Amino acid sequence: MPINRKTAAPLFTISLETSGVPIYRQLYETLRRTILSGQLPAKSQLPSTRFLARQLAVSRMTVVNAYDQLLAEGYIEGISGSGTYVASVLPEELLETKDKSRKPKSGESLNRRVTLSNRGERLAAFDHVNLRPSRTDAHFAAFHYGLPAMDAFPFDVWARLVSRRLQKMSASLFGSGNPAGYEPLRCSVAAYLRTARAVRCEPEQVVIVAGAQQALALIAQVLIDEKDTVWMENPCYLGARNAFAAAGAEIVSVPLDAGGFDLHFALHKNKNARLACVTPSHQFPLGTVMSLSRRLALIEWARANDAWIIEDDYDSEFRYSGRPLASLQGLDADGCVIYVGTFSKTIFPALRLGYMVVPENLVVVFSAARALMDSHSPSIDQAVLTDFIEEGHFARHIRRMRALYAERQAVLVSAAKKDLAGLLAVPPDEAGMHLVGWLPKNIDDRIAAQKAAEQGIETKPLSVYTSEPLPSPQRGGLILGYTAFSAGQIRNGVKRLAKALTGV
Amino acid sequence: MPINRKTAAPLFTISLETSGVPIYRQLYETLRRTILSGQLPAKSQLPSTRFLARQLAVSRMTVVNAYDQLLAEGYIEGISGSGTYVASVLPEELLETKDKSRKPKSGESLNRRVTLSNRGERLAAFDHVNLRPSRTDAHFAAFHYGLPAMDAFPFDVWARLVSRRLQKMSASLFGSGNPAGYEPLRCSVAAYLRTARAVRCEPEQVVIVAGAQQALALIAQVLIDEKDTVWMENPCYLGARNAFAAAGAEIVSVPLDAGGFDLHFALHKNKNARLACVTPSHQFPLGTVMSLSRRLALIEWARANDAWIIEDDYDSEFRYSGRPLASLQGLDADGCVIYVGTFSKTIFPALRLGYMVVPENLVVVFSAARALMDSHSPSIDQAVLTDFIEEGHFARHIRRMRALYAERQAVLVSAAKKDLAGLLAVPPDEAGMHLVGWLPKNIDDRIAAQKAAEQGIETKPLSVYTSEPLPSPQRGGLILGYTAFSAGQIRNGVKRLAKALTGV
Repeated sequence: MPINRKTAAPLFTISLETSGVPIYRQLYETLRRTILSGQLPAKSQLPSTRFLARQLAVSRMTVVNAYDQLLAEGYIEGISGSGTYVASVLPEELLETKDKSRKPKSGESLNRRVTLSNRGERLAAFDHVNLRPSRTDAHFAAFHYGLPAMDAFPFDVWARLVSRRLQKMSASLFGSGNPAGYEPLRCSVAAYLRTARAVRCEPEQVVIVAGAQQALALIAQVLIDEKDTVWMENPCYLGARNAFAAAGAEIVSVPLDAGGFDLHFALHKNKNARLACVTPSHQFPLGTVMSLSRRLALIEWARANDAWIIEDDYDSEFRYSGRPLASLQGLDADGCVIYVGTFSKTIFPALRLGYMVVPENLVVVFSAARALMDSHSPSIDQAVLTDFIEEGHFARHIRRMRALYAERQAVLVSAAKKDLAGLLAVPPDEAGMHLVGWLPKNIDDRIAAQKAAEQGIETKPLSVYTSEPLPSPQRGGLILGYTAFSAGQIRNGVKRLAKALTGV
Repeated sequence: MPINRKTAAPLFTISLETSGVPIYRQLYETLRRTILSGQLPAKSQLPSTRFLARQLAVSRMTVVNAYDQLLAEGYIEGISGSGTYVASVLPEELLETKDKSRKPKSGESLNRRVTLSNRGERLAAFDHVNLRPSRTDAHFAAFHYGLPAMDAFPFDVWARLVSRRLQKMSASLFGSGNPAGYEPLRCSVAAYLRTARAVRCEPEQVVIVAGAQQALALIAQVLIDEKDTVWMENPCYLGARNAFAAAGAEIVSVPLDAGGFDLHFALHKNKNARLACVTPSHQFPLGTVMSLSRRLALIEWARANDAWIIEDDYDSEFRYSGRPLASLQGLDADGCVIYVGTFSKTIFPALRLGYMVVPENLVVVFSAARALMDSHSPSIDQAVLTDFIEEGHFARHIRRMRALYAERQAVLVSAAKKDLAGLLAVPPDEAGMHLVGWLPKNIDDRIAAQKAAEQGIETKPLSVYTSEPLPSPQRGGLILGYTAFSAGQIRNGVKRLAKALTGV
């Protein structure tokens, strides 16, 4: 309950409240604003602390404290024996300007033009819907893409590992760390990638990053200038496309055929690209696997043209039939490929840890770029993740999730066969964390996704990942993430989706 | 103990080892390399699985697994009834090229020119000593700068808060989060800054970042183009200077006088600067406080010229005499100031959390920049920090550290008076986490720092923070961080420093 103590002092009004802010601070603030607004002009005398304390019914110490602060900051001057005065050095003309421009709303831009950099202008022009999380509230609805199974993550194990690290906190996890990452984690990641993904790498080539998005941002900084050409798959992951577009790159959208990335098309469009960004093991979002001959040809193009290949290996841990396909990076003997991977899919997205494998001669420049971008990733998180890997929890968790996700995909496929016949064709996929549901011809997938949203179903239309001009007429599709949802949620989601799509 | 099983197959040699890698995988790898090297040409027949298994003394299933993988990846083709062949679609000319260029060393760049972006070239040219942590091993020696007291941080409380969050893990901390930060943390930071630093802000203006360095990187991206002029204090924090230099800005180094940042000098040099980066409350590293009239004049310059002021308020929590000075941002009614602060000094550096307060109309563009830089900071860390603040631990910890650091500074000053007389003058400071020790005239501070390092003392010479040309002859200095070290360590450090500096 606010108590207002008001007093009419010679030149100004003071209103104090019982908020969380100390009284002396409120008084200081009021006096400061009064001085800055010009109401109390330079050299004018302030009331004595005794007088003001009595007027405001506060202790004299409170007023002394407020005056001390104003004194320390140069607003007022104490002239011994003769009282306290507003400082004479306040440049009055500035204060008048301030007075005119001062408005109650804080932070609002007034009286000035907001000028951004070229990159700032590009960022401001982006479609921000795609740069923000779909939901900021506490749950995600089926078929939100990109989420692992939260109900199956061993939080108890994770909590134990965090607790152990915090109890024996070491200086190397407390102060600043290596921009390229916590050394033991770089070793664990190198060992994992050599075995699981046939990546050719030493620990020194591994750069720990805050998720794949940061790897892409670093690559754009270090390798791409404005107006450089970048080949992107069409459709593709928007985070990658936007990272290069924000850097001012000219994007060439390259269609896909059965062998993946259409190199012929790309060469025909602009063979002098600086960089090709691809998802060879499981194209996002269509799931195509890039053929071996296409992989070799792409590497040869990069080698011959001093260009770069970014291999975004975003979900290769989850291959359900056959074995994981080896990485494209493992075929490259010339340091043309930068390999990017993430723990967002295998641990959880909000951890914000990923990795890149860069040619040895680029490690220093990527470390420098990381140091200036944000120094390094949180050290305790990196140490806990190292423990999680080295103590076998990571491999075990991936094995369990591979089985669980295969089951969940099967549930989705069979529920879709039953309830979505004629509305959405949902073919299975040998890998990944999502399926593409194909709409009948001539149905706009944005409208379909909108109808689904009205039924509480989260799904992204394929066309948001697609760039014009399309190489050929393509059917609309919906991206259906299934890994985060129980069999019951999936079946229920399919029913609601059927309801949404009926009569679109 | 490795067991080598060798066999001379018709065209190739296979050597298997009992490493951690499964036998089938070793076989697959060997065959793959043999095919890619051209030793096994296209269409050549492979031995039968039965034959090869016998030759290698492995189970037939092992060979079948290896062949299956090669088949899946397109290296070989199985022609039903007639055996297995190297694929005919392998583009031979590529394989020959690969053969010539292939070298055993992984990741090494061969046969190609490494071309970087302009920014990449600038990053590669930087002095990397300054972009890396001073030490990556497990301890920091006196007088390492920028470290809070590790022995006084309440890790038990922190561990309890982490554990509680992990046990009741919520979806909002698991999936992707808001690029601008975890909402409750933005509210806590806004409340803290309003009270403690007189910052004018709403929670919506707070952007949580991965430390002050990321704030500077985002600012450089959003506001600065190549060739734009940026005013920096001289000397200044290198992370800030480098962030703008990496973005291609022309840096104007502005000297300091008793009132801080010399605005006259700056205006004379280039009044059309886009941005001024300052540390008004406690200049880094000299400790000067920017006078009120200088603050007002700087804001007026920014307003009139559509320019920006970056207020890096890096250590204002630690003011030992008088009260914390209000922020410069609190004087700005026109949205010219971007306020930057960090939890690296108040919690610990390796947590990688900080904040910026931006004018309302820039929140969206900074969010977009953050989304494309690295999505957002780890959500659990943000939630735990929120709990730490909201449950009073943060305020309590700062209060305790303020007392402890004041003590430690007093120990340093008095030890220096006793043992460093004539070698290094170490005046006290009303604020901060370091002191500047002043060397006698004509002593090169880089040599002094080198001598100190030989005695196991970590100290940065003032001149590394200084840009040529210096406005006036300046004495050399050493930066002495004292907050992370016990009284004993400080006294011992001073003795070793005395030994180091004697006879320099």
